[in-house]
Amino acid sequence: MRRGDRLRVRYELRLSGGETARGKAEGIGREQTVEIAPGIASARLERRTMGRLVGIERRGSARARRASATIDYPWRELVSDLPQLLNLLFGNVSMQRGIRVAGIEWPEELVARFPGPRHGVAGLRDRLGVHGRPLVATVLKPIGLSPRELARHAAECALAGIDLIKDDHSLADQPAAPFRERVLAVSEQVRHAHRVTGRRTLYFPHLGGPVDRLAERLDDLREAGAEAAFVAPMVLGLDTMRALADTSGLVLLAHPSFAGAYLADAHGIAPELLLGDLFRLAGADVVNFPLAGGRFAFSRASFDAVRERLAAPLGRLPATLPMVAGGIDEAKIARWLPRLGADVVYLVGGELYRGGRVRERAARLVERVATGALRP
Amino acid sequence: MRRGDRLRVRYELRLSGGETARGKAEGIGREQTVEIAPGIASARLERRTMGRLVGIERRGSARARRASATIDYPWRELVSDLPQLLNLLFGNVSMQRGIRVAGIEWPEELVARFPGPRHGVAGLRDRLGVHGRPLVATVLKPIGLSPRELARHAAECALAGIDLIKDDHSLADQPAAPFRERVLAVSEQVRHAHRVTGRRTLYFPHLGGPVDRLAERLDDLREAGAEAAFVAPMVLGLDTMRALADTSGLVLLAHPSFAGAYLADAHGIAPELLLGDLFRLAGADVVNFPLAGGRFAFSRASFDAVRERLAAPLGRLPATLPMVAGGIDEAKIARWLPRLGADVVYLVGGELYRGGRVRERAARLVERVATGALRP
Repeated sequence: MRRGDRLRVRYELRLSGGETARGKAEGIGREQTVEIAPGIASARLERRTMGRLVGIERRGSARARRASATIDYPWRELVSDLPQLLNLLFGNVSMQRGIRVAGIEWPEELVARFPGPRHGVAGLRDRLGVHGRPLVATVLKPIGLSPRELARHAAECALAGIDLIKDDHSLADQPAAPFRERVLAVSEQVRHAHRVTGRRTLYFPHLGGPVDRLAERLDDLREAGAEAAFVAPMVLGLDTMRALADTSGLVLLAHPSFAGAYLADAHGIAPELLLGDLFRLAGADVVNFPLAGGRFAFSRASFDAVRERLAAPLGRLPATLPMVAGGIDEAKIARWLPRLGADVVYLVGGELYRGGRVRERAARLVERVATGALRP
Repeated sequence: MRRGDRLRVRYELRLSGGETARGKAEGIGREQTVEIAPGIASARLERRTMGRLVGIERRGSARARRASATIDYPWRELVSDLPQLLNLLFGNVSMQRGIRVAGIEWPEELVARFPGPRHGVAGLRDRLGVHGRPLVATVLKPIGLSPRELARHAAECALAGIDLIKDDHSLADQPAAPFRERVLAVSEQVRHAHRVTGRRTLYFPHLGGPVDRLAERLDDLREAGAEAAFVAPMVLGLDTMRALADTSGLVLLAHPSFAGAYLADAHGIAPELLLGDLFRLAGADVVNFPLAGGRFAFSRASFDAVRERLAAPLGRLPATLPMVAGGIDEAKIARWLPRLGADVVYLVGGELYRGGRVRERAARLVERVATGALRP
């Protein structure tokens, strides 16, 4: 953790045409701040506000034309809020090519301006009363089912001891299952299961928008007694999640929908910084992302980096819980259990629905995960 | 313009590994809707809600491994609001690779659910009292200047007859020029210039966030008498711009900051659909995007496509005005004038600041654009 006035950002560069590493790197420090050609603003102003190139090195062979550039930004002059942090890190340069935000060293005081996880791993575990083992989650889907059908599935899963239940991110406020009806019906079943089993299940309804109805949606959540919610920050706006974290008191889960375009190798933002640091700064208690080797384009390296970064020191923020997803079944969990440790959520979606007997199979899965009885 | 219940989306596919065109295409129609493996949901539900592959063709040579797939989505079941439209078009598949949203045929009734431009080209021209010629705009920058310095620059430009003045997208609410002070100071100068010259200049302050202070910012705009504002939809949230269009009455300008990651060739959303259709649906009266061949990675084809799409029929929505930017000077305008016609805004930023005599040079530029006296 850095102290002081400089936000240090490392960009990986791919050079094309007549670009030089130094030219491209200095261009970023200028483009993202004063955004004006040299020789127009005063030298004094540029010293005060411009990003300063503090390190540059070639990567790989000369033919590969890659470099790594480190820029220090005087963040106090530049970052008034979370949207401006996005603007600064990757705003205008997103419209160029071959620029990837690959590393960020956060000044402690900058981190302290953002809410971060309000509950974090420890708060979530306390709420569930579950410690020292991975959590198991499921998804209410598919879109097209009625609130009653979704609630029935939720009931089976909650009675089976599933820890977390989330809406599918496609469920918002469609005619088949309007938000309010769905949330009320599912929450009632989750409460019912708690009375029956004594175990807690946390339900994350999808706050999908529109943004000017979020206050009304929050009223629905209060009426339903829901304590959690999930958002897709790149769909709804990262700062809208931040505002929810600042004021709602809800346990918040962040979903990567619409975020994938930023995660390309050559141009974008490293997954551990977007889904890791930025989602965590903005208040995600849980971040949902793909298991490596599943149906999404997510490498083992990215997968590990996101997991690690969610738990790594970041100011005084609590750790965020990784929720891994994407075609997970019992066999996959068995393979990953020894590697991922206790602080992870396995999200089993469609596979729990296959062939009926949901409650029985879900209960067995939770039992096996809880007792460590699953073996690869 | 389509009628009826189907939103038709064409995806360009790049195949890798063991992928087949048909498998990948059918996977998209499933992933973006029911998101559940075959054989779990009922056939009846899948018929009702799933995206249906209606066309597929190979592109280029067999070795290129490219294809184009057309999917019809039953939008009434799926799209409850703008965030869910983003989810549907590119939400989860953003996390895969080699998928590009390349064409959209909008049903008229779906378009009618969104505000679109509240003023559009005609409304903006009426407000300015300028018809039949391109408009000239400038940017207040760099970050680090005081409200007074920015207002002085605005005064010079407004007195010179510049049509539109926007904040730089890096100006939000930083200590050097807090939002309220800046907006009040600049607006006063713009009004003063109007009293002097009788000509109108429209000032677009940057509504940069945070989202939970937008209401307060709108109060500041009212106090300042500002009639316009600009947002970066991919930073602040596209639905937040939509909400502003629905309720604020402001003339809205949309800026492409943070949007560039979606505009890659192999994976993302075609520029004319993201900066064109989607920004327009969400209420942009003006869309700011890079001039082809400038310092941003924007091809001539993309540039032309965005321009054309902003003016093309889209339900009953008015046309949106293209604002071209990125290192523009008088020579560049001279080259583009004969090609771009009247309905375009040339944004001249830093070049107006070079070497002083801003008012004189700006006045000459406006005069030359207005009289068609610029020649390549």
